[in-house]
Amino acid sequence: MTAFTDLFGIEHPIALAPMGGAAGGALAAAVSNGGGLGLLGAGSARDPAWVERELDLLTAGTTAPWGIGFQCWAAPPALVARTLERGPAAVMLAFGDPAPFLGAIRDSGARLIMMVTDVAETHRALEAGADVIVAQGTDAGGHGGSRGTIGFVPAVVDLAGPTPVLAAGGIADGRGLAAALALGASGVLLGTRFLASPEALQTPAAAKALLDGLGEDTERSSVLDIAHESGWPARWTGRALRTPFTDRWRDHEDALRADPDARRAFRAAEERGDPEAAVVWAGEGLDLISDLVPAADLVGTVAREAAFAAARLVRAFPSPDTEKHARGR
Amino acid sequence: MTAFTDLFGIEHPIALAPMGGAAGGALAAAVSNGGGLGLLGAGSARDPAWVERELDLLTAGTTAPWGIGFQCWAAPPALVARTLERGPAAVMLAFGDPAPFLGAIRDSGARLIMMVTDVAETHRALEAGADVIVAQGTDAGGHGGSRGTIGFVPAVVDLAGPTPVLAAGGIADGRGLAAALALGASGVLLGTRFLASPEALQTPAAAKALLDGLGEDTERSSVLDIAHESGWPARWTGRALRTPFTDRWRDHEDALRADPDARRAFRAAEERGDPEAAVVWAGEGLDLISDLVPAADLVGTVAREAAFAAARLVRAFPSPDTEKHARGR
Ligand SMILES: Cc1cc2nc3c(=O)[nH]c(=O)nc-3n(C[C@H](O)[C@H](O)[C@H](O)COP(=O)(O)O)c2cc1C
Ligand SMILES: Cc1cc2nc3c(=O)[nH]c(=O)nc-3n(C[C@H](O)[C@H](O)[C@H](O)COP(=O)(O)O)c2cc1C
Repeated sequence: MTAFTDLFGIEHPIALAPMGGAAGGALAAAVSNGGGLGLLGAGSARDPAWVERELDLLTAGTTAPWGIGFQCWAAPPALVARTLERGPAAVMLAFGDPAPFLGAIRDSGARLIMMVTDVAETHRALEAGADVIVAQGTDAGGHGGSRGTIGFVPAVVDLAGPTPVLAAGGIADGRGLAAALALGASGVLLGTRFLASPEALQTPAAAKALLDGLGEDTERSSVLDIAHESGWPARWTGRALRTPFTDRWRDHEDALRADPDARRAFRAAEERGDPEAAVVWAGEGLDLISDLVPAADLVGTVAREAAFAAARLVRAFPSPDTEKHARGR
Repeated sequence: MTAFTDLFGIEHPIALAPMGGAAGGALAAAVSNGGGLGLLGAGSARDPAWVERELDLLTAGTTAPWGIGFQCWAAPPALVARTLERGPAAVMLAFGDPAPFLGAIRDSGARLIMMVTDVAETHRALEAGADVIVAQGTDAGGHGGSRGTIGFVPAVVDLAGPTPVLAAGGIADGRGLAAALALGASGVLLGTRFLASPEALQTPAAAKALLDGLGEDTERSSVLDIAHESGWPARWTGRALRTPFTDRWRDHEDALRADPDARRAFRAAEERGDPEAAVVWAGEGLDLISDLVPAADLVGTVAREAAFAAARLVRAFPSPDTEKHARGR
């Protein structure tokens, strides 16, 4: 169907974003069972026990191809190597230097998916021999760069040549999947849309905030990383729902860096579940999300909507070329 | 072909963005002659003589439907009313309250196109009775808001109901046009792509900078508006190529507001053509632009590329539905 589905022998050109801590084994298994590619969100992998437990759930939950994703700047190579013994079809690397992980991934036979956020990262991912490139736009929930999805995806497609590209960032329905393929991508990587599913690991309050929020209620900044003292490299900022805390410190990042008390107070409030301190990473596609949908159903629905969007396109361009291809040649 | 082309009786679902001062009569006429909808960029319309002169060129240059665009926050209603006597098929309003202009536009019989940058503006545009809504994402060159194009366009489509929507921001080739239609839009409004045409009003140096630049060389900020003392409302920032000046003042906007000498020195340098002070408004689609192409040819090329992209989509989704529509039913 696309170069991406062919590569993994799956039905739909839809991957689950390996959202650290939120995309656990149940969600990844559901996406794979729905005909997409479920990627477990190992994140910075600082909690190996969590990763092992979620891998148990994942491998018990599906016999279809699945994968796992890590943040390069933080993940311990030894843990990454250990997860390869569980037989992922794919490992996704993002945010940093992939070199410490490449040998083990190659040896395991898993496919290498690399996420990129600008042109320089794209060149490096191609040099590293990525089998699939994820072109992530700033519209994305969670961490990322500053390129807009709609212009960045075709730019990466042009650089990637035959390497399949997935579009990520601000895509939350089948219209977005169809748009991604129109831009030249071979599929999409969806985060926020799957976060609004019963299988995602999050609080009910966060789920409700996703359903209530609009894309314009989100904001990309480094305020939360500074408050968390998470060590995130500053070149990637995070997109999350705005809160009184982010409103307070926007454009005052230096002051927050200089104020350990404010940072501590925020983390304490977050810890005790204070709604004003809740962090909900989310992308620009929120307007399109109004209900929690089981993840396996979502995969099929998004694919079906995309087929309708494709049909609309053909009506707009009833050229001999579209008719020829529609007849299956 | 689409609700937009039907409305104006034109061939291709492509409008020229009314880029203030850059989209003159020659460019607008070329786009209309190519089968799109050329919109003259009257901008803030502070120079009525320029507008009259370019309208002369435009009306002498085409017999096809054309239009004109104004910035609401600055344009004098009397001038807008006067231009209506020249017989535009459409008037596009953006950036501010349309009320002072609506009566005259309605009376003239011209169609009303309104550009929006967030959900609240979308509701207001629909209430004002816009015939076409332009959903402009932050990926756009020139002034705009903060919504990402790929998520904002389908959100506006859902709000707009039967009103046709054009997608704007970061779109620069036929893949982008196809993506816009997939998202539910009825066409695109292209700025930066047409800026890189021989008909656009700009310096050769600016044209070269467009061809050399990437989307990630652009940045959205208010630095240039502060330096220009242009009075632009702060809620809309401008996307332009980064320069030593914008690098110097990024994140120091308050300091620039407090420094009349720095502002004066910048404007003097700009005036005498200092390359370090050149302002080149441009969008995230720059990666896709590598040559100056006559605007009428561009219209046809973009439409043709979109038809190819549509064909690729149909290959990805060879459903009964796409086949039925491809057969023309
Ligand atoms: C809650 C959340 C957590 C994320 N964590 C990670 C992560 O650990 N590693 C990673 O590569 N990407 C992570 N991302 C980014 C996703 O990989 C993906 O690029 C993004 O979700 C796509 O944009 P969308 O959310 O608009 O669909 C995360 C995204 C979200 C929303
Ligand atoms: C040089 C330039 C000048 C612009 N001037 C105006 C303007 O005067 N009025 C307006 O409504 N939009 C203006 N825009 C924005 C366009 O209407 C349009 O939304 C934008 O160009 C679309 O994004 P793109 O440049 O990525 O195609 C301008 C854009 C550029 C690049």
